[in-house]
Amino acid sequence: MEIGFIGLGNMGTGIARNLMKAGHRLTLYNRTREKAEALAKDSGAIAESPADAARPGIVFTMLASDDALTAVVEGDRGVLAGLPADGILVNMSTVSLAVTRRLASALHAAGKHFVAAPVFGRPDAAEAAKLFITVAGPAQAVAKVEPLLAAAGQKLANFGEDPAHAAAVKIAGNFMLQTAIEGLAEALALVRKQGVDPAQYLDFMTSSLFTAPLYKGYGSAIVEGRYEPPGFALPLALKDTRLAIAAAEEVGAPLPIADVIRDRFLIALSRGWDHLDMAALGKLAAENAGLKS
Amino acid sequence: MEIGFIGLGNMGTGIARNLMKAGHRLTLYNRTREKAEALAKDSGAIAESPADAARPGIVFTMLASDDALTAVVEGDRGVLAGLPADGILVNMSTVSLAVTRRLASALHAAGKHFVAAPVFGRPDAAEAAKLFITVAGPAQAVAKVEPLLAAAGQKLANFGEDPAHAAAVKIAGNFMLQTAIEGLAEALALVRKQGVDPAQYLDFMTSSLFTAPLYKGYGSAIVEGRYEPPGFALPLALKDTRLAIAAAEEVGAPLPIADVIRDRFLIALSRGWDHLDMAALGKLAAENAGLKS
Amino acid sequence: MEIGFIGLGNMGTGIARNLMKAGHRLTLYNRTREKAEALAKDSGAIAESPADAARPGIVFTMLASDDALTAVVEGDRGVLAGLPADGILVNMSTVSLAVTRRLASALHAAGKHFVAAPVFGRPDAAEAAKLFITVAGPAQAVAKVEPLLAAAGQKLANFGEDPAHAAAVKIAGNFMLQTAIEGLAEALALVRKQGVDPAQYLDFMTSSLFTAPLYKGYGSAIVEGRYEPPGFALPLALKDTRLAIAAAEEVGAPLPIADVIRDRFLIALSRGWDHLDMAALGKLAAENAGLKS
Amino acid sequence: MEIGFIGLGNMGTGIARNLMKAGHRLTLYNRTREKAEALAKDSGAIAESPADAARPGIVFTMLASDDALTAVVEGDRGVLAGLPADGILVNMSTVSLAVTRRLASALHAAGKHFVAAPVFGRPDAAEAAKLFITVAGPAQAVAKVEPLLAAAGQKLANFGEDPAHAAAVKIAGNFMLQTAIEGLAEALALVRKQGVDPAQYLDFMTSSLFTAPLYKGYGSAIVEGRYEPPGFALPLALKDTRLAIAAAEEVGAPLPIADVIRDRFLIALSRGWDHLDMAALGKLAAENAGLKS
Repeated sequence: MEIGFIGLGNMGTGIARNLMKAGHRLTLYNRTREKAEALAKDSGAIAESPADAARPGIVFTMLASDDALTAVVEGDRGVLAGLPADGILVNMSTVSLAVTRRLASALHAAGKHFVAAPVFGRPDAAEAAKLFITVAGPAQAVAKVEPLLAAAGQKLANFGEDPAHAAAVKIAGNFMLQTAIEGLAEALALVRKQGVDPAQYLDFMTSSLFTAPLYKGYGSAIVEGRYEPPGFALPLALKDTRLAIAAAEEVGAPLPIADVIRDRFLIALSRGWDHLDMAALGKLAAENAGLKS
Repeated sequence: MEIGFIGLGNMGTGIARNLMKAGHRLTLYNRTREKAEALAKDSGAIAESPADAARPGIVFTMLASDDALTAVVEGDRGVLAGLPADGILVNMSTVSLAVTRRLASALHAAGKHFVAAPVFGRPDAAEAAKLFITVAGPAQAVAKVEPLLAAAGQKLANFGEDPAHAAAVKIAGNFMLQTAIEGLAEALALVRKQGVDPAQYLDFMTSSLFTAPLYKGYGSAIVEGRYEPPGFALPLALKDTRLAIAAAEEVGAPLPIADVIRDRFLIALSRGWDHLDMAALGKLAAENAGLKS
Repeated sequence: MEIGFIGLGNMGTGIARNLMKAGHRLTLYNRTREKAEALAKDSGAIAESPADAARPGIVFTMLASDDALTAVVEGDRGVLAGLPADGILVNMSTVSLAVTRRLASALHAAGKHFVAAPVFGRPDAAEAAKLFITVAGPAQAVAKVEPLLAAAGQKLANFGEDPAHAAAVKIAGNFMLQTAIEGLAEALALVRKQGVDPAQYLDFMTSSLFTAPLYKGYGSAIVEGRYEPPGFALPLALKDTRLAIAAAEEVGAPLPIADVIRDRFLIALSRGWDHLDMAALGKLAAENAGLKS
Repeated sequence: MEIGFIGLGNMGTGIARNLMKAGHRLTLYNRTREKAEALAKDSGAIAESPADAARPGIVFTMLASDDALTAVVEGDRGVLAGLPADGILVNMSTVSLAVTRRLASALHAAGKHFVAAPVFGRPDAAEAAKLFITVAGPAQAVAKVEPLLAAAGQKLANFGEDPAHAAAVKIAGNFMLQTAIEGLAEALALVRKQGVDPAQYLDFMTSSLFTAPLYKGYGSAIVEGRYEPPGFALPLALKDTRLAIAAAEEVGAPLPIADVIRDRFLIALSRGWDHLDMAALGKLAAENAGLKS
C-alpha cells in the first residue's frame, strides 16, 4: 500500500521501517530532510512537504508536541491540504485531548478522517515492532488502518469512534508509568538512607510483587544512576504530565500524584537536567534525602 | 521441630498451617483462644500465654501492630520471659523500625535472638505457601529458621544481620504497593470521566505495561467497586503508610506520595470506611472527580 | 476627561462610578447592555461596541477571563480597531501573563499602548474607591492614567514598563491570599475536631499574629459556614489558581501549595459548589475531617 | 509571690525576667546552671533540681520538646515529686497533645494541677512582655496564675478547663504561621523568576492585604536572604509541623499544607541547614525555582 509518514525521530523511524518491512511503500517527510533520505534508501520516497506526504490517502504522524502536530496538519502545505477526500490521518503522536478533538473536527469538516493511534513503548520496542497501540476513530477508517498498525505493534486495542478516547488512554497510561517511577524513586531513596542495599531491594521487589518489566528497567537506571543518554528526556516527560493534568482538569478530576511529579520535573529542569532521562526522578529523590545521587 | 506460633489472624493461620504441613509441631497462642483451638486439632498444642508459646526455643509472631507485638513480647508472661537462652523470636508482623530495633536490643541483651521476617502477600497466598519473605537478623539464627520460612513462602530474601533492614524493605514495598493503587485510582477516575470504558482501559494496561498481578487485582476491585469484604482494611493500610512516613522521617527523606495517600486514607476513614479494603482509594478518587463511586 | 469603560460587573461598576464622581465622562460598554444603561443615567454615554468605547483614546477593561478580554480587544469591532493612534488600553482584569504579553505586543505594533492595572479588593472596596492597584506599562502612558487610577484606589504601585510585571504581582498576590484561606480552613477544621471553639480560636489569632483583615473576613465566613452569596465564586478562584500555576510553570518554579488548592477547588466544583464563595475551602476541609460543614 | 521557673533559653529568660520585674521571687532551674546563675543575680534563687524549683507550689516550664518536658516533670527529682499538694505546673512549652494530656493526668492523679499556657512570640517579644498567651486548665488553678501570665504577655486568652485545648490552639496557630511563610516563599520565588523586584512586591503586599507584621518580618528575611542567626531554627520548626500533623491525625483531619511544609523542612535539613531560621523555606523555594537563593 502507498502510505505517507511524517516524523522520523527515534520512534517514527522504527515504525516506518516496520511498515516498509511489511511491504508498504512509504513517502517520507521529516523537518530535517537527512533522516528521511537515510530511510528512503530502503524503499521509500521523499516528500517535499506534509501535504505531499499526505497525497497517498493514508498518512501517519509521529511528532513531539501539540504544536508540531498542529503545524504539520494545519500549516502551510500541511496534511489537511494534501490529503485527498476520504483520506485518513493516523496520528501516533502523544498530544492533548484538545488538539486531538480540534484536528478530528477539522478533518471531518473537510470530508477526511482522523484516527488516533498513540503507542506505548520505547524506541527499541518501536524498532522491534513490539509497541502497544491504542486506536480510536471512525470505524471504517480504523478498519482500514488496523492491518498497518498490526505491523508496528504487538498488541492493538480499539477504543471506539472517538479519537480523544485513545488519546486519553495514552495520557492516563503515561501518568501511571510516571507514578510507578516516582514510587520507585522515593522507595529507593528511603531504603538507601536506611542502609539497605538498593540493588537487592529492587531485585527482591521486581521478582515478587512488581514483576512488570518497567519496574526492573526504571529501577535499575535509578540504582545505577544511569540517566544518560535519555530514552525519554525530562522535558518530554513534563509535557506528558501536563497533558494528564490538563485532561483531568477539563473534567474536574484532581490528580494529586501528577501534581507531585510535575513539581519534581520543574525542579529537575531548574537544575539543568534537560538532557536526563525521566528516571532522574530517582536522582531528585536521592538528593532530597541528602544522598549523593 | 517444636515451634511456638503467636497470632492466628488471616495471615497467621495460613502460615501456621503450612508449618504443620511441613511436619513441625506447633504450640499455638492467640488472644481469642478459639482460633488456636480450631487449629490445634490438626497437630498443635495450646499455649496459655506468649511465654508458654516461646518455650520451645523458636517462636513466630504475626500480629497487627507495634502495640500488639510489644505487649506479646515484653508484657506480663511474654515472649521475652518464656524464651529460653539462645532462643529465637521470628517476627513476621509488619511493625515500625523503632519497635524492631528496640525488641532486637532487648532480646540481644537477654542472650536471645530477634529475626525480622515480614512477608508480602494476602491471606490466600499465606494459605498456599506463596508468600514473599524478607529476612534479617543474626546469621546463625537466620540460618536456623530459613528452612521453616521456606515452608511458608515461595521466595525468601536475606537482607543481612540487621533486623531493621528487613523491616525497612517491607515498609518500602508496602509504600510502592499503595503508590500503585493510588495511581490506578486516579487514572481510572480520569478515564471514566473522559468517557472511556474503565474495564477496557484496565485490561489494556494490565496486558501491556502493567503486567504485575497486583495491577489486575486492585484495578478490577476499583472498576467493579468491590471493596468488601476487605482483604486488607483501610485502618491497617493507614498504619502501613504511617510506618513508611516514620521510617523516612527518621532518616530525613521526604515521601510526598505517601503524604498524599495518608491524607486520602484519613478522608476515607472520616467517611466511615473502616470496613473497606484499601482499594477504596479508587472510591475516593472517583468521588473527588464527581463520579458515583 | 473622556474615557471608555468596558465590563460592568460588580467590580467594573464600582470603578466606573468613581471615575464619574471624579468628573470624567465615560462611554460605557457591557455585553448585557442593561448594566451600561443603568450606569449611563449618571453621566455616561452608551457604546455600541468595544471599538466605540475605545474611541476617546483611553479605555478601561474589567473583564472576567482571558477569553473575554481577548474577544473585546481583538474581536470584531474590538478595542484594537477603535482605539486611535497613541491611545491607551488600561486593563484592570486579572488575566494570564501570556495574554497580557500578547495584547501588549499587538497594541504596540499598532502604535497604541497597553497598560496593565490589575486591582486587589472586593466589590465593596471598588465601590468605596479603596482598591489596591498595581500598574505597569509604557512610562508616558502610565503617567497619563495614574490620576485616573488614583480615583479608583487607595494605593497605587508602579511596577515599571513591562505590563506582565503588574499582572505577575496580581497573580502572586492572589496565590498568597488563597494560601491564607486554605491555611485558615485546615487550622479551623483541626481545632474544631479537637473540641476547641473555632470562633474563639479565630478571635485570638486575628487579634494577635494574624491582624490583616482578610483573616478575620475569611475566617468568620468559615466559622459561620457563610459561603453564599459569593463575594468571589469558586470557579473564578480556580481560574486564579490556574493563572498562578501557569505563571510559575513558564519560569520553571513549582508552587506546591497552589497544587493543593487547585485540587481542592476541583473537588469542590465536582460537588456542585459553583455558587459558593472561595471561602468554601473551609467547608471542604471540614468535610474531609468528617465534620458537618 | 514565690515561683519556680524551669528552662532558661531565649524565651524562658525573657519571661522569667518579667516575672521578677513584677515583683515575684523566682527559684530558677536550668540544665546548664550558668544561665540560672546569671539571672539569679537579679532577684532569684538557684534550684538544684526540677523538684526543688517546684517546691514553692507554682512552677513554670519553658522547654524545647516533649522529651525535655517529660524528663523534667516525671524524671528523677522531677516536678511531680517536688510540687506540693494542690501545687500548679504552668507549662509554657509547645508540646504535643499526647504529652499535655498525659502530664495533666499524672498531676491530677497526684492531687496537683497542670495548666497549659503556650505562647506566641519571638524572644524579643518575651523580653518586652509582649507575648500572646493561650491558657487552659482547672479553673481555680488558672485563676491563680493568670496575674502571673499577665506580667509576661500583652494578651491572654482562656480556652477553658482542658489543657489540651490551649496546646491545640498553639499548634494550629504555628501551622498557620508556617503556611504564611511558605506562601511568601513560593510567591517571592515566582515574582523574582518573572523579573519583578521582590522587595517592591513585598512592600506592596504588606501595605495592602497582608498588613500583619509577620508578613513583613518573614518576607524581608526571605527577600534579603537573611536566615542567620536563626530566630527560630529549622529543626524546631519541623518539630512544630510534626505536632500539627500528629494533632490532626489523631482526630482524622488531613493537613495537606503541613505535609508540603514538612517535606520542605526535611529537604532543607538534608542540605545541612540546621542552623538556619525557618524563613529558609524561602531559600528552598528559590533554589527549587533555579534561582540563586
